[in-house]
Amino acid sequence: MNKGRLIVISGFSGAGKGTVVKRLIEKYDYSLSISATTRKPREGEVDGKDYYFKTEAEFKSLIDYNGLIEWAQYVENFYGTPRKFVEDEIAAGKNVILEIEVQGAMNIKAQYPNAILIFITTKDIDTLRDRLVSRGTETPEVIEKRIKRAAEEASSMEQYEFIVVNDDLETCVDAVNSVVVSEACRKENCTQFLIDIKKQLEEV
Amino acid sequence: MNKGRLIVISGFSGAGKGTVVKRLIEKYDYSLSISATTRKPREGEVDGKDYYFKTEAEFKSLIDYNGLIEWAQYVENFYGTPRKFVEDEIAAGKNVILEIEVQGAMNIKAQYPNAILIFITTKDIDTLRDRLVSRGTETPEVIEKRIKRAAEEASSMEQYEFIVVNDDLETCVDAVNSVVVSEACRKENCTQFLIDIKKQLEEV
Repeated sequence: MNKGRLIVISGFSGAGKGTVVKRLIEKYDYSLSISATTRKPREGEVDGKDYYFKTEAEFKSLIDYNGLIEWAQYVENFYGTPRKFVEDEIAAGKNVILEIEVQGAMNIKAQYPNAILIFITTKDIDTLRDRLVSRGTETPEVIEKRIKRAAEEASSMEQYEFIVVNDDLETCVDAVNSVVVSEACRKENCTQFLIDIKKQLEEV
Repeated sequence: MNKGRLIVISGFSGAGKGTVVKRLIEKYDYSLSISATTRKPREGEVDGKDYYFKTEAEFKSLIDYNGLIEWAQYVENFYGTPRKFVEDEIAAGKNVILEIEVQGAMNIKAQYPNAILIFITTKDIDTLRDRLVSRGTETPEVIEKRIKRAAEEASSMEQYEFIVVNDDLETCVDAVNSVVVSEACRKENCTQFLIDIKKQLEEV
């Protein structure tokens, strides 16, 4: 059986990557990796669905036992990707989606060179700002901070193999799926198939 | 406006590439390049739809005036790809499908390095043979000749960037379209977009 692929999705905060990932899982056959975190659950968040909520001691134990394929600290919270789920799913031939920020994505690519890195963006920065404003949950200061963070993230965009614009949600979701379908058809990922076909032709 | 891309489709005789191309044109937004040939029209073939039927003198004049982007001779007939349609459509931002055999595909790639080369195959050679047999129009000798030709073509499969299996027609057609969508998202094909986004972020 072919191994599954890791699909790493990053993007500007406000580009709607959470919505894209949610729709991708609904519409196509992907497994979603759920992050572990030491941050406290927000209203409505469910353990094992939104995150695996861990104490700091539990999280550090995961690190010590090599249970995370990558982890990072933001402000005072830890976030990481549990190894077992990802590796079991790939071995079972499933494509696994990781929604992860830029630094984590680079860590993944270093360990899994076959991972597909996709960056989700709005069509321009005015649209990004408009989306952050229209959420109505962010103060102007937070919005400016997020735009500044986007400027930092933009410097890493070129580390991604694919750039997908989220203008229309369905178009964006279909484009992300197209990248995965297309990568499976790439000659370099069909070497066994090519060997088999040639062998069959030698025998005729 | 972005330029369109050339999509070159080749494949084993019997792999159903003609049907794939027909369905691709019906289902998605592509322009189809129509070949010129000196071969006589078969029953039901329409000039300007199936081929541009030319006399040998007309065909040689097209060659002399650089009116073909590639041409070849098979048995006593000439086949070629008219330049004007392809270049006008690309300039207008349309993706152009060329259904063409292996040698022509290599000529196209040499002239248009940005062309996407896709090879359509059955899932195995037994299936290829079954399809040729079930057409019921080919003698056993012709079928063996086609299988032998497949063996020659297989040596060129690795020159193609993408290998798409035609097991289920719709899946195959969607996969070919996915390759084109995905290539448009490839970072190297988004350089102007990346420049624009970075410029916008510098100005905030």
